[in-house]
Amino acid sequence: MRVRVGCQFIYAAEVATHAVVQVEPRLEGAVRALDERWTTTPQIAMSRYVDGYGNVCRRATISPGVSLLRFDAEVEVPDTADPQRLDAAELAPQDLPHEVLVYTLPSRFCPSDELADDAWRLFGSVPPGWGRVQTICDWVHAEVTFGYLNTSPLATAVDVLNTRAGVCRDFAHLAVTFCRALNIPARYAFGYLPEIGVAASGTPMDFCAWMEVFLGDSWWTFDPRNNQRRVGRVPIGCGRDAIDVAMVSAYGGPQLTSMTVWADAMPRP
Amino acid sequence: MRVRVGCQFIYAAEVATHAVVQVEPRLEGAVRALDERWTTTPQIAMSRYVDGYGNVCRRATISPGVSLLRFDAEVEVPDTADPQRLDAAELAPQDLPHEVLVYTLPSRFCPSDELADDAWRLFGSVPPGWGRVQTICDWVHAEVTFGYLNTSPLATAVDVLNTRAGVCRDFAHLAVTFCRALNIPARYAFGYLPEIGVAASGTPMDFCAWMEVFLGDSWWTFDPRNNQRRVGRVPIGCGRDAIDVAMVSAYGGPQLTSMTVWADAMPRP
Amino acid sequence: MRVRVGCQFIYAAEVATHAVVQVEPRLEGAVRALDERWTTTPQIAMSRYVDGYGNVCRRATISPGVSLLRFDAEVEVPDTADPQRLDAAELAPQDLPHEVLVYTLPSRFCPSDELADDAWRLFGSVPPGWGRVQTICDWVHAEVTFGYLNTSPLATAVDVLNTRAGVCRDFAHLAVTFCRALNIPARYAFGYLPEIGVAASGTPMDFCAWMEVFLGDSWWTFDPRNNQRRVGRVPIGCGRDAIDVAMVSAYGGPQLTSMTVWADAMPRP
Amino acid sequence: MRVRVGCQFIYAAEVATHAVVQVEPRLEGAVRALDERWTTTPQIAMSRYVDGYGNVCRRATISPGVSLLRFDAEVEVPDTADPQRLDAAELAPQDLPHEVLVYTLPSRFCPSDELADDAWRLFGSVPPGWGRVQTICDWVHAEVTFGYLNTSPLATAVDVLNTRAGVCRDFAHLAVTFCRALNIPARYAFGYLPEIGVAASGTPMDFCAWMEVFLGDSWWTFDPRNNQRRVGRVPIGCGRDAIDVAMVSAYGGPQLTSMTVWADAMPRP
Repeated sequence: MRVRVGCQFIYAAEVATHAVVQVEPRLEGAVRALDERWTTTPQIAMSRYVDGYGNVCRRATISPGVSLLRFDAEVEVPDTADPQRLDAAELAPQDLPHEVLVYTLPSRFCPSDELADDAWRLFGSVPPGWGRVQTICDWVHAEVTFGYLNTSPLATAVDVLNTRAGVCRDFAHLAVTFCRALNIPARYAFGYLPEIGVAASGTPMDFCAWMEVFLGDSWWTFDPRNNQRRVGRVPIGCGRDAIDVAMVSAYGGPQLTSMTVWADAMPRP
Repeated sequence: MRVRVGCQFIYAAEVATHAVVQVEPRLEGAVRALDERWTTTPQIAMSRYVDGYGNVCRRATISPGVSLLRFDAEVEVPDTADPQRLDAAELAPQDLPHEVLVYTLPSRFCPSDELADDAWRLFGSVPPGWGRVQTICDWVHAEVTFGYLNTSPLATAVDVLNTRAGVCRDFAHLAVTFCRALNIPARYAFGYLPEIGVAASGTPMDFCAWMEVFLGDSWWTFDPRNNQRRVGRVPIGCGRDAIDVAMVSAYGGPQLTSMTVWADAMPRP
Repeated sequence: MRVRVGCQFIYAAEVATHAVVQVEPRLEGAVRALDERWTTTPQIAMSRYVDGYGNVCRRATISPGVSLLRFDAEVEVPDTADPQRLDAAELAPQDLPHEVLVYTLPSRFCPSDELADDAWRLFGSVPPGWGRVQTICDWVHAEVTFGYLNTSPLATAVDVLNTRAGVCRDFAHLAVTFCRALNIPARYAFGYLPEIGVAASGTPMDFCAWMEVFLGDSWWTFDPRNNQRRVGRVPIGCGRDAIDVAMVSAYGGPQLTSMTVWADAMPRP
Repeated sequence: MRVRVGCQFIYAAEVATHAVVQVEPRLEGAVRALDERWTTTPQIAMSRYVDGYGNVCRRATISPGVSLLRFDAEVEVPDTADPQRLDAAELAPQDLPHEVLVYTLPSRFCPSDELADDAWRLFGSVPPGWGRVQTICDWVHAEVTFGYLNTSPLATAVDVLNTRAGVCRDFAHLAVTFCRALNIPARYAFGYLPEIGVAASGTPMDFCAWMEVFLGDSWWTFDPRNNQRRVGRVPIGCGRDAIDVAMVSAYGGPQLTSMTVWADAMPRP
């Protein structure tokens, strides 16, 4: 299946401002690129690198005045919904591969050390495995109310647990935190999510956040915000939490005047 | 100069408990190993790996009952104190190498996004460069009182700023956080610090924490706890904060019955 | 300075054939991208990855029939010629950074173990440093005759030394091999080389190969084929030799019907 | 099962000579360390690093005169022979993970581009998969005569195919080369091989070389020299060929006066 994804930012900056931009599909995995195009007005020379989590990053210095950055890509994704394997097991810590251990540790927005008691009280008696992770998603999906009002870019999972409100990133942070508190490796993921096979939300498209959980021998997608296995997901990156995977990390305060995101299924060629 | 470093832990565990241990000298850098020995009683088969920050880690599953883990090494370190270059410059964000950008971001114990106002108020008018970083160290060294009483393993730099109390790890967290809030890459470092050229403290040796700051084209050691350039420092690891570099990260609750750390200058051969 | 670079391949394949393509500017370094575009006809979904040398690679499965692959980019490069520092020193092996040691070892096309005697006989008495590397380039440039006739895709540096003939890749292989035989880290580099500030060659543009040599504390460009410090070089990748950096590594035998390469300075915006 | 492994080198050097030493068990995988000890006489301060293939390396500068380097370790290995899965499939190139592609390419001692015709003639009609790799091992084991006489440290797989003689490293190089010529990822491996469950050879113990082949979703051990699935193998490292995994790579010509290697099953504790 082909999906067209992309985004456009318009910034107004008073002084030249450096920024790291993460909007390109993640290197690894099932998504393959057919066409990709970056456009900047006025033209910005961007350097690229791959961060310590395997995410593609671009660095841009935004000039004073108004700047437009636009990324547009056509990608191929699997025709099927997020894979699942209900018998994928929770591994004992000693059986986890080295490289996933970092995702059992607390992080800025996922302080699993603080929520250990809550996690064990709520989910400690649920049988381990896929079902327990799904139970966490169900709980977060049911208990947290989606909305832009009662959230903050500095909200941690503790804040989300207290306010029971937030956006998709907050849902992901809370679910990641519960998993880690139970010693289940979980990471924050971020990307494009087209509305395929679901009722149109009617709201403007935005980037989406979800989580990936290590069960059995691989990472599996769980989406506590939508709590659905979806078709067409295009990951941009993943990391310990939203700090590591921000669409834009600006070193200074350029004003984001407008942002548009798109993720649309394309007709069969 | 030769230094003997090492540590011994005695654990009492009720159930088999997996743990990641970081006590070996860091791979890179000026420290070279002459002799190293691991001993465990009863014997524990340990796997080794290098984490995403370049630190050597060992994984051990501690059996029920009493276990002793002991690491002992003889290493060669430079004869001179922590290097300094007073004219090493703060780089503008666009001039920072890719791989240090992660150390400008907030982390679990170093929420530089929360302390941005404080950092700019306190240090925003100090001329950039080595002197500004030293000013941060001076401030933290003067304002925070060393002590084990008013601290907690969950204390963030915000807590340290409020309580003005903590151990070396808290001093490091606060100084790292101020640097990052000013867009200066800073990382948490952890290791052995022999008492060479300083008055003996008279207290039992412990692991030490300090920070490394990227100025000019390399990382430089700053030690807000002692606020001295010291001879004989043996780094074990570094990371975004203490989460990434813990002497022991246990998956469960074995009881640490006793811990001994040593770091002693050796007589010339 | 802005340079437009790119290439177009037309393949005729009898069966579906997998290939790894390396034609995008290298991630690190002084080149920054303004605009990049991939086009394939019929459309090919390509996955991307970064290889162990830091090169960007794309994987494509070319369908039976005729396929066109086209990459086009506008990049910004320094206005100045390849940097040089005549006093950059040859380091003793014990002073080399860990990560460059691999470039002192023999490789498929650069069997420095076989040419050790030749290298020491020819260059052993030349004073070490930048001048010695330049002497190697002068020698290779003077002794080897450029031409497509007496060369082979399997030619090693030994073959080049014997035949004294080859294309830019052969020049690079021989110079790299001499450096390594003297324990000087040297790697093969590959990219676009516009004709800026030099007489137009009048021949169709092609990819170019040169070498990078580690002196002092960084890698420096040397170009034994042209033996000039040039403006506008756009590296695609580097590796131990041409095996690691091929524009196309096909798993099977699709026929390359046509190849066009461009690298042109652009008018000032 | 516990195995004691180690080695001792005595070098006589005329001038100070730098060397990279690879004799410690590989980080990843099934082998876990119980005890490890390095001893050098006179004492040599060694730095450690992990190379691009994941192998642990030590760097030592050997002083003029006689030096002894000794490594001794007690490790735990699986009780069972090298795992096998007869239905592990050969993957089509497009299905290979990115990180194994490098092991389909020719290298210094494994010029699979030169032996493509031989490989296809000999093994092209054998059904793909585990059986084909075993057929390659059987052929190499049967056709090549073991011996130290007709071999050279510069022998490539082409030389081995011509002379039909060599040591374990030559057996491994030829088998690796045949696999790669058929697009099967294969890498050279090197380590300790105790004589467990086999008739004692009666010859002094030495390091051993074998190969690892990527089938299905992982690497599998094949040993064309012994052509047996063995118990107790302790890998030190792996790479593209013996260049990447040498017990000692010396930058200069210290004379190896004596070498002793041990690999012995230990009694049950």
